[in-house]
Amino acid sequence: MSDFQTWVHAHQQRFEEVLRELLPPADIAPQRLHAAMRYSVLDGGKRVRPLLAFAAGELAGAALARVNYAAAAVEMIHAYSLVHDDMPCMDNDVLRRGKPTCHVEYDEATALLVGDALQSLAFQMLSETALADDSARQLQMVKLLATASGSRGMAGGQAFDLASVGKQLSISELEFMHIHKTGALIRAAILLGAYCGKDMTEAQFGKLDHYGKCVGLAFQVVDDVLDAEADTATLGKTAGKDADNDKPTYVTLLGAAAAKKMAAELHAEALQALDEFGDKAQRLRELADFIVMRKY
Amino acid sequence: MSDFQTWVHAHQQRFEEVLRELLPPADIAPQRLHAAMRYSVLDGGKRVRPLLAFAAGELAGAALARVNYAAAAVEMIHAYSLVHDDMPCMDNDVLRRGKPTCHVEYDEATALLVGDALQSLAFQMLSETALADDSARQLQMVKLLATASGSRGMAGGQAFDLASVGKQLSISELEFMHIHKTGALIRAAILLGAYCGKDMTEAQFGKLDHYGKCVGLAFQVVDDVLDAEADTATLGKTAGKDADNDKPTYVTLLGAAAAKKMAAELHAEALQALDEFGDKAQRLRELADFIVMRKY
Repeated sequence: MSDFQTWVHAHQQRFEEVLRELLPPADIAPQRLHAAMRYSVLDGGKRVRPLLAFAAGELAGAALARVNYAAAAVEMIHAYSLVHDDMPCMDNDVLRRGKPTCHVEYDEATALLVGDALQSLAFQMLSETALADDSARQLQMVKLLATASGSRGMAGGQAFDLASVGKQLSISELEFMHIHKTGALIRAAILLGAYCGKDMTEAQFGKLDHYGKCVGLAFQVVDDVLDAEADTATLGKTAGKDADNDKPTYVTLLGAAAAKKMAAELHAEALQALDEFGDKAQRLRELADFIVMRKY
Repeated sequence: MSDFQTWVHAHQQRFEEVLRELLPPADIAPQRLHAAMRYSVLDGGKRVRPLLAFAAGELAGAALARVNYAAAAVEMIHAYSLVHDDMPCMDNDVLRRGKPTCHVEYDEATALLVGDALQSLAFQMLSETALADDSARQLQMVKLLATASGSRGMAGGQAFDLASVGKQLSISELEFMHIHKTGALIRAAILLGAYCGKDMTEAQFGKLDHYGKCVGLAFQVVDDVLDAEADTATLGKTAGKDADNDKPTYVTLLGAAAAKKMAAELHAEALQALDEFGDKAQRLRELADFIVMRKY
């Protein structure tokens, strides 16, 4: 295993324990809701957003105990969005991370509440312990996550996505959708990790944010390629779904070859944004590689 | 009109403008989502929680400009919970505040996203401008709202409610449910209003919180009585729904007369908690009267 793979596995395993601690125990009332929240967050996913937060935290010299909370907040938001997206009124999907989706394993009403309660929990994570060197900075973290999650961020991207089914989108419209739907939260993960550490200049935060914008978009382009080319067993979720749902993707708009080229260009741009940080940004570079070259 | 009625109407009208300003404009993308958010929040409701925040803010000598944001945050959470509660997988209701519910006027997927985005917006409201004399206090406000909204607060109360359909509950179980489902957010409204002002002692915050607990529970008991006795036109929402849905209520458990007596006792206890505040708590006293004596 490479040094990077070791780092990823160690953080993934450690963070799983962090999430187990931070989620409400399933034996505390309301038990069924808490069990369903744990079901929806634990044992799943690559934890890309938390890994980005940890890497940005390392770059900024942040204490791991702080970044844990920031990463957990982002992952709660991400998990809630998956639970709600999978519901029958949205994507109506039955498989997620190789398991039945929340509304299939439990029921629709519970899935609705799981998402709602996970969003609240995310903001609790950002406010219940000191995560930044001063409280004003921590309030900025709350604002950042709220904005990234809301109607001008992730939820807004979902709304664009809904409105785009069966429509012909331009590349710039598709990009606009993804910058909101997945990009906003990925950028938030990186900045939240960095905010836990020593103050950087606004220009440095700007570079990190640009890195985040590029890897966020690359992540989505690669997702579209994988959805078109990989199979359900490898993905752990239903493959070929975008085409079935008549959703515009980078592959349907550009073709697979041009989509792969676009991912490679975004990858290069992401690395360039990290130039001034030197060796401290090594994990962020490796994560950009990982996001673009992943097979699932 | 009494002085109190004038105060209520003035704040309701003024706050409607505040909400119009704070909600994203319907001509900014994603337009349909923003229109549906505005539809779900504006022109509706008695604004009981904001009024409680304004009254507590007056007691604490808080600047109105601050309390506006705190009250808006609470109202966004309340509005999101109504939109999600009304959805087919929950209460499946078609009428709210005299208008078609959000998923009827728009569609289910939009209603889901409206609720999600309103919750994010609530936390944005609490973090984007200075609301308390120091940022650490304001972070406490974020934590308070997150806790009141989540699985140990409002969303948890909803889960209890779901689990209680068709079951025989004891009075203490019913109380437990309502303390979470509606009580937590009402208490949060009062404390958030007070936190915007001058620091009070922990004992004083405790008194305010006890007032909030009593009026919150009284509010629910009165709701149950009204649901059993009023008609749909007066309520602006479907009457008699609890009995139809086989939901336990204070009326079904205690009978109407005992439920009314309970509301009166809670009212008296709420007033008692305000004793030490003198004249400054007059609006909170009047709001307790209003909550217990309302006809809709």
